[in-house]
Amino acid sequence: MTQETILLTGFEPFGDHAINPSALVAEALDGERIGTMLIRTATLPVDGARIEATLHELIALTKPRVVLALGLAAGRAALNVERVAVNVRDYAITDNAGARPEGLPIVTDGPDAYLATLPAAEIVRAIRAAGVPARLSDSAGTYLCNQALYLLCHFNAAREPAVPCGFIHLPALPAQVASHQDLPLSQDGGPTMDLATMLIGIRAALAAAVRFLQESDGQQLPSHR
Amino acid sequence: MTQETILLTGFEPFGDHAINPSALVAEALDGERIGTMLIRTATLPVDGARIEATLHELIALTKPRVVLALGLAAGRAALNVERVAVNVRDYAITDNAGARPEGLPIVTDGPDAYLATLPAAEIVRAIRAAGVPARLSDSAGTYLCNQALYLLCHFNAAREPAVPCGFIHLPALPAQVASHQDLPLSQDGGPTMDLATMLIGIRAALAAAVRFLQESDGQQLPSHR
Amino acid sequence: MTQETILLTGFEPFGDHAINPSALVAEALDGERIGTMLIRTATLPVDGARIEATLHELIALTKPRVVLALGLAAGRAALNVERVAVNVRDYAITDNAGARPEGLPIVTDGPDAYLATLPAAEIVRAIRAAGVPARLSDSAGTYLCNQALYLLCHFNAAREPAVPCGFIHLPALPAQVASHQDLPLSQDGGPTMDLATMLIGIRAALAAAVRFLQESDGQQLPSHR
Amino acid sequence: MTQETILLTGFEPFGDHAINPSALVAEALDGERIGTMLIRTATLPVDGARIEATLHELIALTKPRVVLALGLAAGRAALNVERVAVNVRDYAITDNAGARPEGLPIVTDGPDAYLATLPAAEIVRAIRAAGVPARLSDSAGTYLCNQALYLLCHFNAAREPAVPCGFIHLPALPAQVASHQDLPLSQDGGPTMDLATMLIGIRAALAAAVRFLQESDGQQLPSHR
Repeated sequence: MTQETILLTGFEPFGDHAINPSALVAEALDGERIGTMLIRTATLPVDGARIEATLHELIALTKPRVVLALGLAAGRAALNVERVAVNVRDYAITDNAGARPEGLPIVTDGPDAYLATLPAAEIVRAIRAAGVPARLSDSAGTYLCNQALYLLCHFNAAREPAVPCGFIHLPALPAQVASHQDLPLSQDGGPTMDLATMLIGIRAALAAAVRFLQESDGQQLPSHR
Repeated sequence: MTQETILLTGFEPFGDHAINPSALVAEALDGERIGTMLIRTATLPVDGARIEATLHELIALTKPRVVLALGLAAGRAALNVERVAVNVRDYAITDNAGARPEGLPIVTDGPDAYLATLPAAEIVRAIRAAGVPARLSDSAGTYLCNQALYLLCHFNAAREPAVPCGFIHLPALPAQVASHQDLPLSQDGGPTMDLATMLIGIRAALAAAVRFLQESDGQQLPSHR
Repeated sequence: MTQETILLTGFEPFGDHAINPSALVAEALDGERIGTMLIRTATLPVDGARIEATLHELIALTKPRVVLALGLAAGRAALNVERVAVNVRDYAITDNAGARPEGLPIVTDGPDAYLATLPAAEIVRAIRAAGVPARLSDSAGTYLCNQALYLLCHFNAAREPAVPCGFIHLPALPAQVASHQDLPLSQDGGPTMDLATMLIGIRAALAAAVRFLQESDGQQLPSHR
Repeated sequence: MTQETILLTGFEPFGDHAINPSALVAEALDGERIGTMLIRTATLPVDGARIEATLHELIALTKPRVVLALGLAAGRAALNVERVAVNVRDYAITDNAGARPEGLPIVTDGPDAYLATLPAAEIVRAIRAAGVPARLSDSAGTYLCNQALYLLCHFNAAREPAVPCGFIHLPALPAQVASHQDLPLSQDGGPTMDLATMLIGIRAALAAAVRFLQESDGQQLPSHR
């Protein structure tokens, strides 16, 4: 019997962030098992021109049963389980290759948006039940994170059987905020979450994803609201 | 020559809100002209079972060239020009008829989401140029406001020629926050915007919408990013 | 009978702010009457070396029965009625003369702090009753606004009879936020309040101050909590 | 030679909080050493009528060289090192004995406020250098936390030699937010910090306090700005 795998991705650092907790979380979970399923991980480039090919290769290589992508959303306080990916590239800062599209589609003639195929509300409940703050988010932004989720959903729409996919945004790490050189003493630098708490939350999310997969096996995957 | 009209809608009060600034703004602009176009207004019910029929009737009655819907988003600080409507009803509170769907679609088998067909980014710039705070928002929530925008986009998708439509969320009015009985003295109750400032902003938004209409006349309407 | 006066001060622009709503509010109320009392106004320099002398001169000139100072606190959503002034100068940015003290006292050997002698809680209630958002604040910062309130309280402590004094922080004006050049389209720039709403609130605050003065006439002024 | 001690206090649970991280942090550090100094800890009652006597007894019992009190400020994102304690009791909720004073002094005829005698700015820098988010706060509120700091400073003012004292507010723990029953799925419940990160921060704060003590030994203690 073939080893079934979960593909878990993080992103490389970008912008002002010298590290990206999403890559650290993914690496820390590489090789762990959720039930009988093996977690395999990779770090995605923050590069709008390369991310599609990278995702294609990773999926071809790992043949995952489920894909969860992670990214950094500094300023958010909880794990944000994303429900929607829109067909928009509108980067507030340049990506790591220096590109900064404004108001362009990700996939020309693609649908305006996709709903994530992993059950976002159930995943929020599972993360909270593990003691980790989480919320259901209806906007993954319009930068690389949204692009990754849109592309994963778009691949799925053309594939049989579909591979359920989702996206979770992580807060900044405490040390990222504490080391900010220009932060006045009277400002707090925004909310953070430590790596250990993130790992508990992401494990709970993956367990919920696997439960969902087993319950829906053999059935058509609905969009999730 | 027939009088061309803009349909501008607000919502009735709901939840804890004894008044809804979106209805006040719409009423205040009823009968005004933007260039040669006449603003006609209506107040929508906060009732998920009735809103579709109400919108249909209003459109049949006013035959608008453009539709802008307004709603209240207490807690937001600026005019929020919405770019995305998702096919999700997930009410955090009951509507005025007592319904509280969780994770249901608005239109069964409808697309996961629509992008507004009015140019959201240009409208944000036009409002700001009039001295009024505005932002581009990628989530209109999953309550009646999102439902109104989704339905307007859905009607359009089936119609020839399409009528460009958009949605703007308004902050609470100062008096709504100041009159909150249980607000401790040490809390501010969140950001507000007064009616006069809202009116300046919405007039600027409508002017931008009409300019867009004239520039795109005779052409196919794209989704807007 | 001599004309009794209220001294109402604003501040000149500073830092990134091309205008300062506190000076606009004060100017707009100059010459108005609250009951039988005349409002006289002045604009204070954002200059830690000059503010003490300026306040002394204004008080000698206007012989006020009550002093209310106003300042700008961009980022706050409501009128913030300040209850506490601390003996600390800790400027997060330079003042208009280029000074930036860190952790220095305002008055060497002065008390660690003063409570405002105008009744902050009653003023909050009066402003809210006028339909304007307000809150009771226990920190006026450590820049010029706090310095003004500390100095006013310090003068009073040495004077017989004491002149009740207070301080109110104002939000930014809508146009200040809307005209911010570098604000990304997806950000709102923070809460604002328009000039008309501020004027309603400050008139209500002054009326409460005058009522307090009349009720406490002939009695010793307590610190206010 | 007598064992020199640090007194570190937390508070018992109150209001909606079934646990209070400040008591957990204090307990976890009980018996640790910072250099040659021993940490002794206690949990204070959230009871305005009993806190003064409890603090007196603890100080008589432990004869500390330095006192650091900890408390919970749910909603704050970082360790908040408090610089100011005001002579005000203005409880937004009842204390654990059911009392809810409004606008009363802590010490009748006491000074309006005290500045903490531990160096707040240096402690913020030390906590940040340990990788933990911290900020300098100029308001400890007007509930039991402020009351504890005010009383500690007030004891000191009458004592020779003075014992430097300070206060640090802690964020909520992740599990406190995650377990909140009424939190809608779309809300995050506010910022949190886990216990391990808090412990790193408080150890760094205590080390800074001890350094300060050694540097200032034999000198008069100044108020700290």
